[in-house]
Amino acid sequence: MTLEQAIAKLNEFQTAATAYGHAMGVMYVDGDTAAPALSYKGRGNTMAYLSGITYKLVVNDETAEICQTILDNRDKVTDVQARQAELLKEEYEDMTRIPMDEFVAYQQIQTEAAAIWHEAKEKSDYAMFAPYLEKLIDYNRRFASYKDSSKPAYDVMLDGYEKGASTATLDPFFATLREKLTPVILAVADKPAPRTDFLEKSFPVHIQREFSSRLMAIMGMDPQRCTIAETEHPFTSGFNKWDVRITTHYHENNVASSMYSVIHEGGHALYELGTADDIQFTSLATGATMGLHESQSRFYENLIGRSLPFCRVVLPVMQELFPRQMEGVTAEMLYAAVNKAQPSLIRTEADELTYAMHIMIRYEMEKLMFNGDAKVSELPALWNKMYKDYLGVTVPDDRRGILQDTHWSGGMFGYFPSYALGSAYGVQMLSNMEKDVDVWGAVGKGDLTPVTAWLGDKLHRYGKLLTPDKLLLNAMGEPFNPVCYTDYLTKKFSELYKL
Amino acid sequence: MTLEQAIAKLNEFQTAATAYGHAMGVMYVDGDTAAPALSYKGRGNTMAYLSGITYKLVVNDETAEICQTILDNRDKVTDVQARQAELLKEEYEDMTRIPMDEFVAYQQIQTEAAAIWHEAKEKSDYAMFAPYLEKLIDYNRRFASYKDSSKPAYDVMLDGYEKGASTATLDPFFATLREKLTPVILAVADKPAPRTDFLEKSFPVHIQREFSSRLMAIMGMDPQRCTIAETEHPFTSGFNKWDVRITTHYHENNVASSMYSVIHEGGHALYELGTADDIQFTSLATGATMGLHESQSRFYENLIGRSLPFCRVVLPVMQELFPRQMEGVTAEMLYAAVNKAQPSLIRTEADELTYAMHIMIRYEMEKLMFNGDAKVSELPALWNKMYKDYLGVTVPDDRRGILQDTHWSGGMFGYFPSYALGSAYGVQMLSNMEKDVDVWGAVGKGDLTPVTAWLGDKLHRYGKLLTPDKLLLNAMGEPFNPVCYTDYLTKKFSELYKL
Repeated sequence: MTLEQAIAKLNEFQTAATAYGHAMGVMYVDGDTAAPALSYKGRGNTMAYLSGITYKLVVNDETAEICQTILDNRDKVTDVQARQAELLKEEYEDMTRIPMDEFVAYQQIQTEAAAIWHEAKEKSDYAMFAPYLEKLIDYNRRFASYKDSSKPAYDVMLDGYEKGASTATLDPFFATLREKLTPVILAVADKPAPRTDFLEKSFPVHIQREFSSRLMAIMGMDPQRCTIAETEHPFTSGFNKWDVRITTHYHENNVASSMYSVIHEGGHALYELGTADDIQFTSLATGATMGLHESQSRFYENLIGRSLPFCRVVLPVMQELFPRQMEGVTAEMLYAAVNKAQPSLIRTEADELTYAMHIMIRYEMEKLMFNGDAKVSELPALWNKMYKDYLGVTVPDDRRGILQDTHWSGGMFGYFPSYALGSAYGVQMLSNMEKDVDVWGAVGKGDLTPVTAWLGDKLHRYGKLLTPDKLLLNAMGEPFNPVCYTDYLTKKFSELYKL
Repeated sequence: MTLEQAIAKLNEFQTAATAYGHAMGVMYVDGDTAAPALSYKGRGNTMAYLSGITYKLVVNDETAEICQTILDNRDKVTDVQARQAELLKEEYEDMTRIPMDEFVAYQQIQTEAAAIWHEAKEKSDYAMFAPYLEKLIDYNRRFASYKDSSKPAYDVMLDGYEKGASTATLDPFFATLREKLTPVILAVADKPAPRTDFLEKSFPVHIQREFSSRLMAIMGMDPQRCTIAETEHPFTSGFNKWDVRITTHYHENNVASSMYSVIHEGGHALYELGTADDIQFTSLATGATMGLHESQSRFYENLIGRSLPFCRVVLPVMQELFPRQMEGVTAEMLYAAVNKAQPSLIRTEADELTYAMHIMIRYEMEKLMFNGDAKVSELPALWNKMYKDYLGVTVPDDRRGILQDTHWSGGMFGYFPSYALGSAYGVQMLSNMEKDVDVWGAVGKGDLTPVTAWLGDKLHRYGKLLTPDKLLLNAMGEPFNPVCYTDYLTKKFSELYKL
């Protein structure tokens, strides 16, 4: 195969893979937002069929040769072509080990599990979801062993979401968080809680929808390129820089819930919207790792969205849309309320300080699922016990317990640690950004453009073009150090709670 | 090729074609409902790529042999297999004449044209849309000549939507309508118009949404299998019996507009929802022709939805949801108002009596586009002139003129006559149904189940399994006679307007 042939075939692959990824991505978003409940019966077939095709796109006799030809001519190809070949080679090597019938069957299980999880969560019926969870765990364990049987299954999965992550790197990371944050959490618990009652009045959903649009405008999200829908569990899907979707979930008596979902998903969306023109419609036009993706969502949600300057900017908007509910509320009161730290049940609504504990529980649960010998039927009891141990709260039902998150229903095991890593990355990015940009001046003016432009320049535009390591160093300006994160939380909550 | 091989390959084709049709259908619906405005930039690429693949699924060396092998063994295969082979053979013969690059380019144009039409309509800017319309006409004219160069292009297109239709059959059909209906329209114009002011008060959109759900419930549409969204131009898409979508458009000061859109699209949806289990996930699981499809939508919209018994059933629902607006309105007043006959500008909001005139104008326009020598730049003036001639109304702008309908932006030329044919078919189906079912007793009870069950039995369940001719005879019980339709309209409007 000549280099020209290899490049032509690589381009063909990018076109095809992008088209299938796009179609399947839209079907997924549609399935979770607009499609009728029973539509999963047909969607499963279609997704399984298209997955089979995408599998064959990657796993075929030519792929290895295409990639090798390009990588052997590193000096004659563009950076974009070289990186595409590098990533395709990795994908090929991973997927070629999974038999196609198992890969297709797994897609079908995933589609069904997603639909069943919705119903199971609504009915708080874990038994209904358990058989699917068991299958998803089995498949993932098997796939991990196909990829690399020399490593524990869970380490293979962790590495899949965050290059280089393993229990060997994460155990000490989480140990640091637990050691540094537990005293702060305990000290906060002794202090009087701030008022939050004004956020728990009745906020009509149709006005919350307008509030979401206003938040997206403050964040500088182009409505011509990003829309919002409603789902049980908020998520972001990006297909290219002209088509990104976020979702949220409205609770009439909790305006902060959707508000911070929108800002969180908005952070993911800005990453996808910021990918460069020359990588569109290729495998590079997306976030580099889950940890980097979460660094952006948690950055906007917490470092910006839960700052006092942002509260000053958003309060007048809230008072315009919800005049009666927000009457007499000051920016300081709002800032205190949205930073109320208290052990709680629901991860997505957890405060910034106790959030990492929710992640630790899921990390420990996943270790038990894959490296331990916990049975699927025992998981809810283990979950409830950990919530008692780590956070001191009693889980009243599985809906607010083990069924709360969508991740496992989608077969995403090993994803959760990315949230904690991302949170920590974000803090270091912020302190690096502050050297170049008047962050708080910009936030104070309600114009996040300079913030997003800086992140765009250091991170977003590259997509997957650079390795995660290089991107992290680019954005953080120094090696990763989890103590920056714990120092930030300690300082913020010591001031807030006058510890 | 053995028969077993042919059947296996036919099944493979059905699976693949269903999957691609499903994915592209969802992308289309999503693109028109939830996707951001600029998403068309990426959707065009994906749709073009997937269209190319579906083209190759049909147009390849084996297709003809698969079909012929099955059709040569008619006594050894099921009716479903034989009909699939018959339809695939037709599709193969049609498509094989279109070069693939033209087919793919056409898909891309269609996607772009749909997006541009939205903007052009909003801005009432025909010049913006004109270059796309010109290309769409050119492609369709060329495709028609590829299919059958011995016939005029427009006849080839008409036959594509309604088997057997041509200007030779439609000219006398429309002549009958014009001859019989014009005196009625003129007589009605001399009578005092009924009150409609109560339908033009302020009807908040979020309550109209609830009204749509109630209408869908009255029609017996399973919400687990059919959902509703909002688009500029209402439409229905069915993917299988578990996944059908309808859309509507809300106008705050015109509650009847969305109400009858929902009932109309509901009729389409019931057809798709009623297809039998044994044809799901095959090319047979959809309506047989556009005329048959429109017979169902117009049946529910007009014969049922604009009847006095239906007005009696729906009025209490309207009075519950819109108590202030509907205060003092009687069923007779509602019946008179929703049947107000008056020459008007917008087809989708036209009354039952003048509706056929809107169709005739489009039919004449299409004849000019394809068989005549009208230039694209001249079309708006021609449109406006015909509205003056046929309906006596002055078109104020292209938004309410030539840009009002989505069909041409989707390359659907020759579709419009199906609406008039469908309206006429429906009248004959109703009189056949009345022999078996107490239609008005059922409607009076607000339970359309017996009506839909009868149509399901005679028509819906078959999908495309039977030929259109057989289905028509099955449902109408006698040969087609347009005078039944004009007699029905004459009687209804003579009584309503005391002619």
